[in-house]
Amino acid sequence: MPRYRLTVEYNGGPYKGFQAQVDLPTVQGEIERAVQGFCGETIRIHAAGRTDTGVHAAGQVIHLDLTRDWPARVVMNAINAHLFPAPVAVLSAQAVDEGFHARFSAQGRRYLYRILNRVGPPALERGLVWHVKTPLDAEAMDRAAQLLIGLHDFSTFRDAACQARSPLKTLDEANVERQGEELRVSFAARSFLHRQVRSMVGSLAEVGRGAWTAADLAAALAAADRKACGPVAPARGLCLASVIY
Amino acid sequence: MPRYRLTVEYNGGPYKGFQAQVDLPTVQGEIERAVQGFCGETIRIHAAGRTDTGVHAAGQVIHLDLTRDWPARVVMNAINAHLFPAPVAVLSAQAVDEGFHARFSAQGRRYLYRILNRVGPPALERGLVWHVKTPLDAEAMDRAAQLLIGLHDFSTFRDAACQARSPLKTLDEANVERQGEELRVSFAARSFLHRQVRSMVGSLAEVGRGAWTAADLAAALAAADRKACGPVAPARGLCLASVIY
Repeated sequence: MPRYRLTVEYNGGPYKGFQAQVDLPTVQGEIERAVQGFCGETIRIHAAGRTDTGVHAAGQVIHLDLTRDWPARVVMNAINAHLFPAPVAVLSAQAVDEGFHARFSAQGRRYLYRILNRVGPPALERGLVWHVKTPLDAEAMDRAAQLLIGLHDFSTFRDAACQARSPLKTLDEANVERQGEELRVSFAARSFLHRQVRSMVGSLAEVGRGAWTAADLAAALAAADRKACGPVAPARGLCLASVIY
Repeated sequence: MPRYRLTVEYNGGPYKGFQAQVDLPTVQGEIERAVQGFCGETIRIHAAGRTDTGVHAAGQVIHLDLTRDWPARVVMNAINAHLFPAPVAVLSAQAVDEGFHARFSAQGRRYLYRILNRVGPPALERGLVWHVKTPLDAEAMDRAAQLLIGLHDFSTFRDAACQARSPLKTLDEANVERQGEELRVSFAARSFLHRQVRSMVGSLAEVGRGAWTAADLAAALAAADRKACGPVAPARGLCLASVIY
């Protein structure tokens, strides 16, 4: 069976997350419907990251197996034709061997969280950013974010429903950068716990508005207790930026 | 009558342009409805630029006169509350004297045109960019764009329905810059003819894809003839970035 690796961008706003659910709109359901429309095959796709309800992706990676050996470009264009007008798009496609698995072959994930930090609400970026009116100190957030780097018990920044066996994760990169009215918060790691990015961003925003010091963030991490977490940032600001193989 | 100057951002996608029209959704209609919801007054607002159907704004400027002397911050927040969930937002408000007129006091307008230049269609930036699959040479476009700067008869780049008395305009700035997959084309002038920016961008894209040379663009300008214009770029990529006073 020819296997294809696809890079996918989507606006998660209309979807109940990536993973297929009966009778609910999901990104996976949308793509599988498009594949069926294109070649008539009922297949299951596999993704690098099963993003949560309302979370976006600019570089999600999936793989799928088809019976017929189509050129990769045909697979991409045909799926895109059947996806439209859904806000889901295949950005690239390539034939890969059976050893490639979108989820298990992934060496790392990079997430971007966008905060629109101004008084006026978003009109153009509506649904793609978290709107925070209080001025945020991006440099203080960036300094505090460095304390999260490394191998830690991330229980504080883990959703109660997280099904990972261990709360131990290694965070490789954490950056907070201001670009005009926007704060771009980025993280890279081999993998993340459920709602880890949104939990870290919400707590970093507490530092940004001066409610927490960097030491408070370090203490929250060290507590390894969900109750020590700040407010969880909303899904709409979060985007799976890329997957590293 | 207290006069207020407001900076407004909007997604033009759902609207038949800025200017109010009976029984059609317009940005002006949306804002005037919100003002009425806030203070009960039926007023007429005035804008720096009457953007076309589907054109966006990040920094449109309007003025309006109210009977009561509200704090500017109250005007902004109340209009925003009544605008929601329309994709129109007041970003700032200030009380100004009667000498200020959003349209007639303006010294210049700056427009940004966004081209998404990649094979895959837009999902996240859907409706905010012009999707061009053919690789565009941004540097060639930027060099050609410089030929448009200065005082010219812009008849070539003027919509047939343009009502300006003269086709003579002075273009102050023109820039084409690549940022990853996106080309950002920006123009500044005291004022523009109807569809001038979209006409210039469409012709510059001909240069970008190698169908026109810079000399072809110069010849098209010199022809001062609408028939010499390239294809007009679609409205969705265009944004009124700011107004200078």
